[in-house]
Amino acid sequence: MHTKKIIYFLGIMFLLHSCSNDVNKKKESNKGISDSESADYAQFVNPLIGTKNMGHTFPGAAAPFGMIQLSPETNKVDMYLEDGSYNAEVYRYCSGYQYDDTLIYGFSHTHFSGTGHSDLGDLLVMPVNGSLWNGNNGSLDSEKGFFAAFDHKNEVAEPGFYSVLLHDSNIKAEFTTTERVGFHQYTFPKSNSAHIILDLMSNIYNYDGKNVWTFLRVENDSVVTGYRQTTGWARTKTVYFAMQFSKPFIAYGQKRNEKVVYKGFYRKFNEQLNFPEMAGREIRSYFSFKTKENEQIKLKMALSAVSSSNALQNLHTELPHWDFEKVKMETRQKWNDELSKIQVETLLPGQMTTFYTALYHTMLSPVVFEDVNDEYRGLDQNIHRSETFTNHTIFSLWDTYRALHPLFNLIQPKRNNDMVHSMLAHHDQSVHKMLPVWSHYANENWCMIGYHAVSVLADAVIKNTTDADINRILEACVNTSNVPYFDGLGDYISMGYVSEDKSPNAVSKTLEYAYNDWCIAQIAKKAGKDAIYHDYMKRSASYIKVFDSVSGYMRPKLADGSWKSPFDPFDTHGQGFIEGNALNYGLYVPHQLEHMIEMMGGKDQFSDHLDMIFNTPIEDKYIAKNEDITRDGIIGNYVHGNEPGHHIPYLYNYTNSPWKTQERVRMILDSMYSDKEDGLCGNDDAGQMSAWYVFSALGFYPLLPGSDQYEIGSPLVKNATIDFSNGKSLKINVIDQGINNVYVDKVVLNGIEITNNKLTHSELIKGGELVIYMKMKQSD
Amino acid sequence: MHTKKIIYFLGIMFLLHSCSNDVNKKKESNKGISDSESADYAQFVNPLIGTKNMGHTFPGAAAPFGMIQLSPETNKVDMYLEDGSYNAEVYRYCSGYQYDDTLIYGFSHTHFSGTGHSDLGDLLVMPVNGSLWNGNNGSLDSEKGFFAAFDHKNEVAEPGFYSVLLHDSNIKAEFTTTERVGFHQYTFPKSNSAHIILDLMSNIYNYDGKNVWTFLRVENDSVVTGYRQTTGWARTKTVYFAMQFSKPFIAYGQKRNEKVVYKGFYRKFNEQLNFPEMAGREIRSYFSFKTKENEQIKLKMALSAVSSSNALQNLHTELPHWDFEKVKMETRQKWNDELSKIQVETLLPGQMTTFYTALYHTMLSPVVFEDVNDEYRGLDQNIHRSETFTNHTIFSLWDTYRALHPLFNLIQPKRNNDMVHSMLAHHDQSVHKMLPVWSHYANENWCMIGYHAVSVLADAVIKNTTDADINRILEACVNTSNVPYFDGLGDYISMGYVSEDKSPNAVSKTLEYAYNDWCIAQIAKKAGKDAIYHDYMKRSASYIKVFDSVSGYMRPKLADGSWKSPFDPFDTHGQGFIEGNALNYGLYVPHQLEHMIEMMGGKDQFSDHLDMIFNTPIEDKYIAKNEDITRDGIIGNYVHGNEPGHHIPYLYNYTNSPWKTQERVRMILDSMYSDKEDGLCGNDDAGQMSAWYVFSALGFYPLLPGSDQYEIGSPLVKNATIDFSNGKSLKINVIDQGINNVYVDKVVLNGIEITNNKLTHSELIKGGELVIYMKMKQSD
Repeated sequence: MHTKKIIYFLGIMFLLHSCSNDVNKKKESNKGISDSESADYAQFVNPLIGTKNMGHTFPGAAAPFGMIQLSPETNKVDMYLEDGSYNAEVYRYCSGYQYDDTLIYGFSHTHFSGTGHSDLGDLLVMPVNGSLWNGNNGSLDSEKGFFAAFDHKNEVAEPGFYSVLLHDSNIKAEFTTTERVGFHQYTFPKSNSAHIILDLMSNIYNYDGKNVWTFLRVENDSVVTGYRQTTGWARTKTVYFAMQFSKPFIAYGQKRNEKVVYKGFYRKFNEQLNFPEMAGREIRSYFSFKTKENEQIKLKMALSAVSSSNALQNLHTELPHWDFEKVKMETRQKWNDELSKIQVETLLPGQMTTFYTALYHTMLSPVVFEDVNDEYRGLDQNIHRSETFTNHTIFSLWDTYRALHPLFNLIQPKRNNDMVHSMLAHHDQSVHKMLPVWSHYANENWCMIGYHAVSVLADAVIKNTTDADINRILEACVNTSNVPYFDGLGDYISMGYVSEDKSPNAVSKTLEYAYNDWCIAQIAKKAGKDAIYHDYMKRSASYIKVFDSVSGYMRPKLADGSWKSPFDPFDTHGQGFIEGNALNYGLYVPHQLEHMIEMMGGKDQFSDHLDMIFNTPIEDKYIAKNEDITRDGIIGNYVHGNEPGHHIPYLYNYTNSPWKTQERVRMILDSMYSDKEDGLCGNDDAGQMSAWYVFSALGFYPLLPGSDQYEIGSPLVKNATIDFSNGKSLKINVIDQGINNVYVDKVVLNGIEITNNKLTHSELIKGGELVIYMKMKQSD
Repeated sequence: MHTKKIIYFLGIMFLLHSCSNDVNKKKESNKGISDSESADYAQFVNPLIGTKNMGHTFPGAAAPFGMIQLSPETNKVDMYLEDGSYNAEVYRYCSGYQYDDTLIYGFSHTHFSGTGHSDLGDLLVMPVNGSLWNGNNGSLDSEKGFFAAFDHKNEVAEPGFYSVLLHDSNIKAEFTTTERVGFHQYTFPKSNSAHIILDLMSNIYNYDGKNVWTFLRVENDSVVTGYRQTTGWARTKTVYFAMQFSKPFIAYGQKRNEKVVYKGFYRKFNEQLNFPEMAGREIRSYFSFKTKENEQIKLKMALSAVSSSNALQNLHTELPHWDFEKVKMETRQKWNDELSKIQVETLLPGQMTTFYTALYHTMLSPVVFEDVNDEYRGLDQNIHRSETFTNHTIFSLWDTYRALHPLFNLIQPKRNNDMVHSMLAHHDQSVHKMLPVWSHYANENWCMIGYHAVSVLADAVIKNTTDADINRILEACVNTSNVPYFDGLGDYISMGYVSEDKSPNAVSKTLEYAYNDWCIAQIAKKAGKDAIYHDYMKRSASYIKVFDSVSGYMRPKLADGSWKSPFDPFDTHGQGFIEGNALNYGLYVPHQLEHMIEMMGGKDQFSDHLDMIFNTPIEDKYIAKNEDITRDGIIGNYVHGNEPGHHIPYLYNYTNSPWKTQERVRMILDSMYSDKEDGLCGNDDAGQMSAWYVFSALGFYPLLPGSDQYEIGSPLVKNATIDFSNGKSLKINVIDQGINNVYVDKVVLNGIEITNNKLTHSELIKGGELVIYMKMKQSD
């Protein structure tokens, strides 16, 4: 444990009077931040940020890295339209909630934070007052179940707590959670027809066949267990549960909504009413009560990926009581413990909200994925034990290797080590003997490209944050990089590049494989495996093969060695890149920037190229094609709302104009993030977008994960203190910080001036003082 | 271990020359039965008996009580016709095989033996020589998969071994098995296109939605693991497997036959060819080889209900080698160990086959249902450990409580004790807190009526074959008998009978509940729980409530207390009985026969009633309605092909004409059973029909399970020796046995003459000599 630092925040009164209602609401519970023992950084977190437009965050209750993420769904979306075509609406609901919506369909227990593809939304619970059939607010047998109107005036979203008033039914719904148990508290009006729906057919998105199987047992008058099995992005996924009510229900039942072809001898029973065993594909169950005015019914829902008996054990171990306020406070304290690892002071009060909400969003995935007894379901669908680590899931690695895992190595090294072990276990359980690409809930979903787990491993190895055996790590990396049927990898290995005619987005893949191989080389080097090191350093030069010196761009090459024509470096589709173009994604050679810049004509010409990226507006025709780009996230052809360019603002450090890095970083911090619900300019992508913000706001960025280096940018904070797990602290003092003072005049680390625009991880974690002197004018 | 007794079988030469080809074929491996060390009773077993018409047995390979029952499917049947109506064809294929069929569709690993409802047929394997697509013998994407012609000339069925030549492809298929591992041996012709199909979508019967999910991993070039999940009679069933080939396959692949709505990022891969991870609802996979002439490819398939890792452990533990002949011989030896517990000599050689095949059929269910590490899946779908017993499944209790479990108490007391514990575990895991009714594969399927597990428990308690705590047993019984929503049970408890208007087949239910309650009373008595004893003895008199003294029949009564009218005691439908009528099923008061007979007018009138049953032909209109009755199984209105009347032939013992019991029993033994493929006159019903034969052939029958008593009938054997697990043996000597000497003149047990036509279990298991003197003429 480290001592919380005192923050004197001069703008506090300003904050209290100028921000939105939502922020003001949260202030009501502010105990004051001048008390070091109760420093409440949670007050600065607004989980609603990113819920409007395409941030894809969720506003609900979660513990840091908790498996349960208990959040409202404001729509239920079919993945396909009636004509069978893809329903683009799905994309807006990756986290189940859109700020502009006016209806809530219930509260489910699993979510992604900020991803660009959807799944989950398991075990939707909805309190209902009135008829279960043909009511004004839905029905057991209706397509979308039950719903209620809500408005933001009666909504509170805080770390570890969410509350909303459901209109019409006049039920107040409150939620908090531990890591494995969701805690519901419903305040009902007086009613003879109060129900709590457990909707076992609801998904964040749906299509015919998504629900695979459901099994449910009413163990007694207040405990229900079972599981729900789905297919989809996670192809073979089962979530087990144990649910307990604070009050016995007086009746219960179900509606099985699929066509039941064969009933067998269950036809003997009236399965719809008070029959304690339910199974099928599409089940909505209900539990009925009589309530007095303002009577509270509480409900605990524990999850497990192993079994309902494990879920029950999670419930009894992790949340054995019914004290809602206690859990709410304990979870808030967990958040404060995590958030206070970085204590900042900002110029503007809204920046406090933006910063701590970003930091909050970095701790919503990966999540704990094991039971209190250490059992978890592995990728092979077998049950494993994690005796020496805590198993985690939700690895959106194409996104998160960039800044999120480096951030973990800075402030969450133990947890990152757990993630390293989780990825190694994934490898061991993989029939392909591959590390995760994009994995969740005991499944590899194969989303996006590269094998960036090797970057996470390399970063942990180089920064000494993992205790995993380096030879085991290396073997897993080497195995992963040699699966010939994976995404053009066979050709990459044999030909030195991925060919566009055989595997689309071939340039992106080639560049990323090359970087990944450099990461493997770094591990090999540290392991003393010279042959592997040299082999992978050679592979890491593959980017050269897709550089067209005539056009000056990375360009898609065909299997016969010729360049693909016609070639449009501005186009984001069909030109060798995924979610980017040759202009921006073509700069993805983080491990050999000097050589890349040399190939592209040298520092000055490269600087001009960067200027062109930021200054040339992207044409509308390219935007329409790309779901991951919104106008908000774009500066010229620089797309901050997506990941492939996240290193680009820092590339000026490799030219003669590092001040342009400072200018651009500060511009992006100011314009691409805010403290409002639409404060994310694109998908948060499991925390990567937020991790970019946290690093950049502190003044540096891990441009090359797998190395010890950070690039210096332009800090947003006035000052900051980072507490490391080694007991040391780094104090960052920004001298002459100001809205217009975006340029760095001088950087001094523990009395020594830094002249190369770089910091090293190994130096920083020794602690001490980093002083950054700001100025208003640029200087080449 | 007990010493095998020497059997001198005088008719051996006759047997060798007179029987069918099939039997002759088996004789080729006969080592001679005069050698006591290798007494080969397996030679007398013909697993094909019962495969023609409605015996519903399967001919394939199985170990005694083994989980794997590896047998050919000769058809694939849809449960519903195109218009949605029930396809009566399904009924013929409860075990997957019909003797008159000419095609084989593959060999699957799980079967029921003799049941009247179907399920299972998991993991169908089929060797193919030729094209996988559009071949003459099926296709990966055809509705029924692959098939091959066969004939019985090239078919061998023995205990633990099955072999058939597949025509067209000219592949010889041979099978043996341990308890948990099926062993395949395929002899191929020379081929560049040899394949082994693993059909993961095949079921013994099928309907849209039966296949729930499939998961498969190709672990390396010769090992495949995964699972297959289905719904149906077992509503929530998963079978995990691990499969190993003796030779690496050179290619493999799959056809996923359902409409795949959402592929996710698996679209990156060519999943059909050499992609080691498969999942979906309807998958056929294949594994390809090149073979030399007569090359053998072997395959081991291990099952588990817990996990694929357990299946792999089962495989490696139980069958670590590739010696097919060794396993075949070891499993045959296991059969001989079991079969030789009763050593008989018969008058006619065919009777040896009939007897030992019947004995064989009594050991095909229940089956072991746990892994070598003691783990098993419970009714709650959680994983449990069976450290103090061996868990079993397939409890067809409405059938098997009658004679099969009493037979186990005689010759398989340890295994019956395992079954008792399995049933108690079922109760503990049941959300209803009920003992099994009809359970298989971690599911209760609720088939048929009553709660006859209590009979099995009572029989074990009374015969001292269980070490389970009697109070635990009693509690489970009491719980089971008090589930108000079960099948009219609530009304039975409150009104003293089940009313026909509220629960059909109400008389059958009332009579069986009454008998069941008598069983519970016996347990209570032994446990010294007087109050419970008296309570359940009172409940056991409920049969009186459904006796209509005016008509003289048990008759359906309505909830208002009136008798249902019109009433036809001959009709088997809608008259209060299931699979029977008032004439026969109405006599089901085994626990109070004296009183029942008195109600029905006394002994002589009752004897007339019995005569009428046997002598009054059943009208055609009643037969058409009842799928479980065939003409073959009927004597008048006595229906031996079904269970409710199995006690009836012995009821003459309660009249003044016990000789009629002797006459009828002998008649049934001779006419309702044979050594031919159609040798069963109705469903074997998990061994009940065969257990009736075994008991009756030995000369006595457990008319009242839960009591210590047997009724003396008329032995078929010339002599017999029963070896008990207590080390004692009972020698049965039948003096003056002959085809026409069907009447019993005198019975002497260990020198004491029996005059009441009864034997007691406790006396029999002391061993010694039972001498039965036969005569040709009846004697009142």
